[in-house]
Amino acid sequence: MSGVVVQDIRRVPVGLADELGALGVATTHEALGRKGLLDPVIRPIQQGVTIAGSAVSVLVPPADNWMIHVAIEQIQAGDILVVATTEPSVAGYFGDLLATSALSRGCRGLVIDSGVRDVRELQAMGFPVWARAICAQGTVKESLGSVNVPVICGGARVEPGDAIVADDDGVCVIPRKDAGSVAEKGRERLAGEEERRRRLAAGELGLDIYGMRSRLKDKGLTYV
Amino acid sequence: MSGVVVQDIRRVPVGLADELGALGVATTHEALGRKGLLDPVIRPIQQGVTIAGSAVSVLVPPADNWMIHVAIEQIQAGDILVVATTEPSVAGYFGDLLATSALSRGCRGLVIDSGVRDVRELQAMGFPVWARAICAQGTVKESLGSVNVPVICGGARVEPGDAIVADDDGVCVIPRKDAGSVAEKGRERLAGEEERRRRLAAGELGLDIYGMRSRLKDKGLTYV
Amino acid sequence: MSGVVVQDIRRVPVGLADELGALGVATTHEALGRKGLLDPVIRPIQQGVTIAGSAVSVLVPPADNWMIHVAIEQIQAGDILVVATTEPSVAGYFGDLLATSALSRGCRGLVIDSGVRDVRELQAMGFPVWARAICAQGTVKESLGSVNVPVICGGARVEPGDAIVADDDGVCVIPRKDAGSVAEKGRERLAGEEERRRRLAAGELGLDIYGMRSRLKDKGLTYV
Amino acid sequence: MSGVVVQDIRRVPVGLADELGALGVATTHEALGRKGLLDPVIRPIQQGVTIAGSAVSVLVPPADNWMIHVAIEQIQAGDILVVATTEPSVAGYFGDLLATSALSRGCRGLVIDSGVRDVRELQAMGFPVWARAICAQGTVKESLGSVNVPVICGGARVEPGDAIVADDDGVCVIPRKDAGSVAEKGRERLAGEEERRRRLAAGELGLDIYGMRSRLKDKGLTYV
Amino acid sequence: MSGVVVQDIRRVPVGLADELGALGVATTHEALGRKGLLDPVIRPIQQGVTIAGSAVSVLVPPADNWMIHVAIEQIQAGDILVVATTEPSVAGYFGDLLATSALSRGCRGLVIDSGVRDVRELQAMGFPVWARAICAQGTVKESLGSVNVPVICGGARVEPGDAIVADDDGVCVIPRKDAGSVAEKGRERLAGEEERRRRLAAGELGLDIYGMRSRLKDKGLTYV
Amino acid sequence: MSGVVVQDIRRVPVGLADELGALGVATTHEALGRKGLLDPVIRPIQQGVTIAGSAVSVLVPPADNWMIHVAIEQIQAGDILVVATTEPSVAGYFGDLLATSALSRGCRGLVIDSGVRDVRELQAMGFPVWARAICAQGTVKESLGSVNVPVICGGARVEPGDAIVADDDGVCVIPRKDAGSVAEKGRERLAGEEERRRRLAAGELGLDIYGMRSRLKDKGLTYV
Repeated sequence: MSGVVVQDIRRVPVGLADELGALGVATTHEALGRKGLLDPVIRPIQQGVTIAGSAVSVLVPPADNWMIHVAIEQIQAGDILVVATTEPSVAGYFGDLLATSALSRGCRGLVIDSGVRDVRELQAMGFPVWARAICAQGTVKESLGSVNVPVICGGARVEPGDAIVADDDGVCVIPRKDAGSVAEKGRERLAGEEERRRRLAAGELGLDIYGMRSRLKDKGLTYV
Repeated sequence: MSGVVVQDIRRVPVGLADELGALGVATTHEALGRKGLLDPVIRPIQQGVTIAGSAVSVLVPPADNWMIHVAIEQIQAGDILVVATTEPSVAGYFGDLLATSALSRGCRGLVIDSGVRDVRELQAMGFPVWARAICAQGTVKESLGSVNVPVICGGARVEPGDAIVADDDGVCVIPRKDAGSVAEKGRERLAGEEERRRRLAAGELGLDIYGMRSRLKDKGLTYV
Repeated sequence: MSGVVVQDIRRVPVGLADELGALGVATTHEALGRKGLLDPVIRPIQQGVTIAGSAVSVLVPPADNWMIHVAIEQIQAGDILVVATTEPSVAGYFGDLLATSALSRGCRGLVIDSGVRDVRELQAMGFPVWARAICAQGTVKESLGSVNVPVICGGARVEPGDAIVADDDGVCVIPRKDAGSVAEKGRERLAGEEERRRRLAAGELGLDIYGMRSRLKDKGLTYV
Repeated sequence: MSGVVVQDIRRVPVGLADELGALGVATTHEALGRKGLLDPVIRPIQQGVTIAGSAVSVLVPPADNWMIHVAIEQIQAGDILVVATTEPSVAGYFGDLLATSALSRGCRGLVIDSGVRDVRELQAMGFPVWARAICAQGTVKESLGSVNVPVICGGARVEPGDAIVADDDGVCVIPRKDAGSVAEKGRERLAGEEERRRRLAAGELGLDIYGMRSRLKDKGLTYV
Repeated sequence: MSGVVVQDIRRVPVGLADELGALGVATTHEALGRKGLLDPVIRPIQQGVTIAGSAVSVLVPPADNWMIHVAIEQIQAGDILVVATTEPSVAGYFGDLLATSALSRGCRGLVIDSGVRDVRELQAMGFPVWARAICAQGTVKESLGSVNVPVICGGARVEPGDAIVADDDGVCVIPRKDAGSVAEKGRERLAGEEERRRRLAAGELGLDIYGMRSRLKDKGLTYV
Repeated sequence: MSGVVVQDIRRVPVGLADELGALGVATTHEALGRKGLLDPVIRPIQQGVTIAGSAVSVLVPPADNWMIHVAIEQIQAGDILVVATTEPSVAGYFGDLLATSALSRGCRGLVIDSGVRDVRELQAMGFPVWARAICAQGTVKESLGSVNVPVICGGARVEPGDAIVADDDGVCVIPRKDAGSVAEKGRERLAGEEERRRRLAAGELGLDIYGMRSRLKDKGLTYV
């Protein structure tokens, strides 16, 4: 199955992706039923940026970034590159030239289960990245991988066209068919939070707001 | 011993905690006899912030943050939440709602041997956190733990009411009864440093200031 | 071989080091034939700083920083301290007093396969550091090590006088004799990049600019 | 999707699983196109044992083994339990009582992305296990998970009914529909190896047997 | 507090230790309320051996085994050496000569949060060891530590005289005052297990033996 | 420097290697001045085997074992293959076919800073291996590396022809020119140990045999 580029994938509408981005990672993850998070070792290289979009997935051999060049041709405005390796490898797969190319096609950012380099330039050009490592190790262009096949990235399964949300808390993948319902549940969740935040700020206790005291007592909690 | 909340603990006076905070982690750690540091994998999520206060300890089951709600009721102004897990677990135990509640009670910050989420919001509201991970994983409210019992957090023993100092260098726990003497020794240590810093800045060598040359020679150091 | 200080080492000329610094880690690493990188777990404690200079190497026992005091006497303007441990050890080997002393001798920064402390002060005084960890653990002055002997730092061999380049992407060590040719090859590499960046920004694909399509087809890449 | 038990799954025929087991992990992994391996941190607790069978998958909450009791009812002769956690957790999910129960239903072994205990008893009763850790930590029975849903175990996707092969080299998962072709390709691969092994043992070089010399020369290999 | 040897400690009676050893790690850990386990990275260097006894604790500086010589004088028949380091350090602290000396005083084994060497000889002489690593790195005798003070070993607090149980599942520490009640509860636990093991072996399901079905249904478990 | 095979290297005489093997890793490491150990994560896949010989070094790209085929032609009786990767990579670089070929040329074993597979077969044929991992992941034959160049393996520098000693305690590399003196110092060290072992077994304390009591007292050790 290596050496395949799937060109025609279904995507999450850009407007819906934008709604998911407005909710952020923690809220969409909760709305999905507490699923979809990538391993927290995949961290942003910048601060204070949230992105959301449809996954263009790339499966790459160790220390070989050839397929990322292939993948960029498949990018449409609003897409996010999601790169997984065929086996664990931390190299500098992605730098400022690839980012320049990706940006020119409307790419919203990169999530990679490996390393990137030129991080100062990437930050300066405003190309957001979530990566396992920062590593300058050069890569080769010798072996094929695939584009737009299902991959496991940061321990989570990503299908091409799935919605990706990434912010300072990490990365969440939402199956394309669930994107709409997640957005709706997420909005409801946020609505309820506002009132609770106001009451908590005023000094009320969660123990009372959430009515936890009786259940804690039933479980046997004792105060001494 | 699970399911216990100790309500009446002795604390370090807030003024004394403030003195320890002014000294910082490296100096109080030295003044305590080079002890008390938590594992350096526990890192601040913000930069340039120092806090000090009395520990309100919380022992929580894996991926279950129920007891943190219970603990917040025990917080007094000047306290620091210290959260340990009954077994290794990295989840998003703490976010902006809990921080709002903790802040309203005068909590100075959180030290947690696990994960937090909503980190951008936490930074924005000025609630300082030292954590093992940033992770959006949701938690449940199913099982009891304890509040204000001795815990092992980041490999260090913390008793409720111990003094906690945390800054960009990490976290140090100081037994409550030692807080006064540590503050005194720390001040002495800092006083001596000023003069040494001036001489070093002027180009004098530590080898000469500290009189190291003869002992190095005795040990057999040779210059070639 | 422990307990030796080599005083007379050959260095990379400061002007050549400056040229390497202008190229940065990724480019010099490529120009060296994709070699020389230290393990990416060695990270900068500051952002946006590049340094380059000649290595003054220090081999230190676990949690004992005595030899760093010895090494500082050997520093000349433009040097970079490179500290390796005789066995794995993460302690607070280096803080603001040592940095004050190193700065007064013209030291450009520190690369250490262990820990540092006083990181806020180090940032404030503009002393750049690349380290495996931030750790406040105090060290002793009991056992000898060596200065200006070959060391393995971050998995890479460093000879005294080798060129060190460090930036946000990590750290690269360049054998002294190769520094000139690396600078030359690096400049050529950068020159070519400028034109490619312009074309990529304009929307041309790397697949076309680099002429990859036929080789990908030969390898068997298929589009579906 | 939590709290679901899928009862009716399609399996790999036991005879076909036996054929895959005779080939072993390395050969089936190769025959599948170098895919399907679980993370090598998942290791056998015994030596010299190979198993193969159909996956009954179990998704469990952290430190909660309730669903393994549920899963055992779904086991048929020839099945292998494959346990994944909803988030990283290393506890003693499985011991000799569960193994006794699983054995009584014809279970061939356990693959678990977490911990087991009673390992001496498990070895003594001949119940084979591949696990991330040996850990005696007790678990609770408080929260639901699921049985026979797709899981990610050791970084690999396992669907219920997929073929699992496990031996001293690790664990390989083979999609159910590929099991037949993998067995066939594996047998062909082994057939060719026998002749090569004989020639290599007689002192012929792989360079000659595989005809590598000209391609190495073309790539630029030089002997000095 | 460094440089102290506490000579007169209270111990668990040897007969009671033997009872705990007969129960093993998993059972005593459960009887203690699911507490007391050391980090599972501390593994036995031999197979099929269980020991139990009273802790003689040793706190040692990094890569310095001087205090272990001091500790051996404090050993009585039935004791177990428990070695913790003042900061993380993996060296070859203990080998066949120290084991010879410890054995001559009736020591039952070693638990060390660091490394050992001469492992083949240790196995041959029947001296049981649980260690974080096998490492031949030599140590020095330069700095003091302490003997029979509270230590944190493998993330668990060990007081001198506490009961230690170690087997193939890991290591458990039981506070001295709890040793009697743990032995009693452990025996009760084992008694109940025998009957359950017989029924499970006969094919009955845990779901029925433990009466889990109604509670699972209440929680919402659904079969499809 | 990639793509080079150095054919004519100087070796340690086989008789001298045998002497080093008789001493073992811990003793040769001590005799070399406590240097030369590879990272203890490189572990034997078998038990109770010691080997010693001259290093034939191989530098391989990630997940590409082509150069091992090239290296085997360079092996002479008594050599040990030492394999390092150009960047971190854990794959199944070496299995039973390569071992068959290596054995036929008199190779004494393999030390590899990566993975091996077919471990049951390797053990059965008596081919000793020290490796970072057991991993079945297949490798390609696409890119050149080098044979008999200096490499860093397990964090230690290995020059072609250096003496390698490996046993259950790990792996030690001894510079070729030091092999004779290490053998001599090692024999002296062992001679002294025999007498000490006898005295320790008879119950004498190391404190007395090594005359440690007065120095401990001078350092401030106190008994309470």
